[in-house]
Order: sequence, then C-alpha cells, then structure tokens
Amino acid sequence: MKVSARNQLKGKVKSIQDGMVNSEVVIELAPGVEITSIITKSSAESLGIKAGKEVYAVIKASNVMIGVDH
Amino acid sequence: MKVSARNQLKGKVKSIQDGMVNSEVVIELAPGVEITSIITKSSAESLGIKAGKEVYAVIKASNVMIGVDH
Amino acid sequence: MKVSARNQLKGKVKSIQDGMVNSEVVIELAPGVEITSIITKSSAESLGIKAGKEVYAVIKASNVMIGVDH
Amino acid sequence: MKVSARNQLKGKVKSIQDGMVNSEVVIELAPGVEITSIITKSSAESLGIKAGKEVYAVIKASNVMIGVDH
Amino acid sequence: MKVSARNQLKGKVKSIQDGMVNSEVVIELAPGVEITSIITKSSAESLGIKAGKEVYAVIKASNVMIGVDH
Amino acid sequence: MKVSARNQLKGKVKSIQDGMVNSEVVIELAPGVEITSIITKSSAESLGIKAGKEVYAVIKASNVMIGVDH
Repeated sequence: MKVSARNQLKGKVKSIQDGMVNSEVVIELAPGVEITSIITKSSAESLGIKAGKEVYAVIKASNVMIGVDH
Repeated sequence: MKVSARNQLKGKVKSIQDGMVNSEVVIELAPGVEITSIITKSSAESLGIKAGKEVYAVIKASNVMIGVDH
Repeated sequence: MKVSARNQLKGKVKSIQDGMVNSEVVIELAPGVEITSIITKSSAESLGIKAGKEVYAVIKASNVMIGVDH
Repeated sequence: MKVSARNQLKGKVKSIQDGMVNSEVVIELAPGVEITSIITKSSAESLGIKAGKEVYAVIKASNVMIGVDH
Repeated sequence: MKVSARNQLKGKVKSIQDGMVNSEVVIELAPGVEITSIITKSSAESLGIKAGKEVYAVIKASNVMIGVDH
Repeated sequence: MKVSARNQLKGKVKSIQDGMVNSEVVIELAPGVEITSIITKSSAESLGIKAGKEVYAVIKASNVMIGVDH
C-alpha cells in the first residue's frame, strides 16, 4: 500500500519497549538522528517490529510543528 | 519554553513555500534526511522561518506511525 | 508498505474536489456509508486518486472519537 | 451538541475492551465494515458505551489518510 | 450528541475569518483567555458560527501538549 | 524554544495523576476554566510538572473542534 502521508522516513529500529497496550519504538533515521513512535502493541506485533528491522517513520506534514531557539 | 512533545529534532530549513494560509517548510535533519512541515503562514512569519535557519521539527510520539515493506 | 494505523477500510472514491493546496476526497465504504478525507493535492495526484478508484481510508484508532445521542 | 468534525458515521458497538486508562471500542458501520476507536475509559463509562449501543464514529477529515494498492 | 473528547470548554465567538476552504475562529473562554480553532468553512456555515455565538471548544486531551518556561 | 502551535494558553497545574505510561494533567486557565492534557509520564517528569506550577497548554488550532448546542 502507498499512503498519502507526506513524510515516510527510512530508518532502523533501535529499541522497542512494550507496555500493556502500547509499544514505544525508537527509530534511527541517520547516525545520531532518532525519532520515537508510540503505536499499539498489537500493531507492533503484527508488523514484526524488533531491534534492527528496517522501517519507515510515517508522519503527516500537518503533525510536524516547528520550534526555534530565541 | 520547553514542550512535552517527545521528538524535537534539530535541523536546517531547506525551503519554504508560502500558500495563502499555510506554509510548507522542508527541514533537513541530516544529509539526505528531510522532513516536511505544514504550519500557518502567520506562524512561519512570527518564527522568522527562512532557508538556512536552524529549527526543530517538533512531533508527538503518538503522531509517528510505522510502516514496513512486506 | 504495511502501516501501523489500526483502521484501513477498503472503499471506492466517490468524488474528488481539488482546492489550491488540498483535495477533498469522498470514499464510499459500503452502500450509504461515506467518509471524507482531506489530503494535499500533491498526494492525491501522486496516488492517482480519481472517481471509481479502489482505495483505503487509513485512520489511527486514537483519532476516532465516539458520539452518542442523548 | 453539534460538532464541526466532518465525519459522523452511525454504527453499533460490536465490542469494548477496557484497559487501565483507555478502552478499545469496535464499531460496526455496516455488515463487514468495522472501525476501531481508542478513548479514555472514563469517557467510555460517561457515554455508557456497551455492546449493541448505537453510536457515531466522529473523525476529522484531516485525520483520514488514503492508501492505494500499487 | 455527546462526544468522547475530554475537553469541551464553553465560550463565545470573538471573531471569524473565512478563507477559501477553512475558517479561523477565535473563541473567548474567559476574559483575556482566547483559543483559536481552524475548521472547514462549510462546517462553520453549517454550525452557524458568527461573532457573539455561544460555542464549545472541543479538544481531545491527547492533543493538549504542555510547555514550561525554563 | 518558540513553537509554531497557535494556542499557548497560560495556566496553573491543578492536579496530576500518573498512570504507568501516561500522566493526566489538569490545568486551570482561569477561575472555573480547566483543560485536561495527557502526556507521557516521562515528559511530565522531565518538565517538572506538579500541582501549582505555571505551565502553558499548547494546542494546534487544527486540533480545536467547535461544538454548538442545537
């Protein structure tokens, strides 16, 4: 499936930590650039998420805010 | 201000394209790793967004989905 | 790509209406059951969205609220 | 109350599963068409959600992504 | 309809500004406390939004981030 | 950091309730006007959230829906 979300960033799972309902997945996009995702534990299992796996961080552009130092 | 969003990724504005209401901002997080943000044009002006500026892409972890090739 | 969003509902595009930046896409999930999506016009073009095309409405479970008549 | 969310799809609760904080509610929109919602357990209780109850799945159009097979 | 969103804050419309697709609505929650909403123009019309009207700002708790001065 | 989210409402923490993963924080924006936020417990700790602390409720305008009585 090809999805309409604007950002589909390739990376590698660095770690996964399971809660009761959700899993927290850390994805390395580049050396030193990591992004954290929270998805349901059942989605994580269904996608076969585990450390080392190649995945995409999928993010709608309207969910990306911008911050600046002042 | 320090905000609760889990992901605050440092980058540099690569391009900004203004619409009537929104602006589309492309941020380079690392060589070859870009993320696109859509914010209101008035926010972009208020933050002084322009090409080359150092910014943060701010994203809640629950807004980061994961995709895998199958 | 297989994505972590919990809801991936099969349907058929009933109509698409392009604005300057966004497109509004109406998807028929079943006779009389329609869902409206707003995505960027460039995503709509890149996905080849047009009336009659088979698509999926992809929605995170945490973005589905519930209402009840009282 | 009438709300601004574009999608307000009528359905019937098929199942509800309570966690400690959140409840996962499956709503049948039409025969074979189901949508899953995650709301707080306290909201589910306050709305009187239970199997068989008529409810609406309420979703903002901008939270509906589109996927296509390729 | 009663909805599952945790925050339903009563206020009064202070101003509405229509774009081509979206409307920007400023709601006064208390003297000096204002919140801005962007909804589609068609929703604004359908709800009869105009300055002075009593409305509710409806927000999911998971969409409220927290910031602190440092 | 200055962020692009349109709403940054000053308030005071009224209560915080920790779950295993998330914390529910009630913020008083004005006498009788409260807003509830759900953030991760680790974010709450990192920001030093506790009753009485001055904070901002940070909300994107597109996440504010509008309801009207009918």
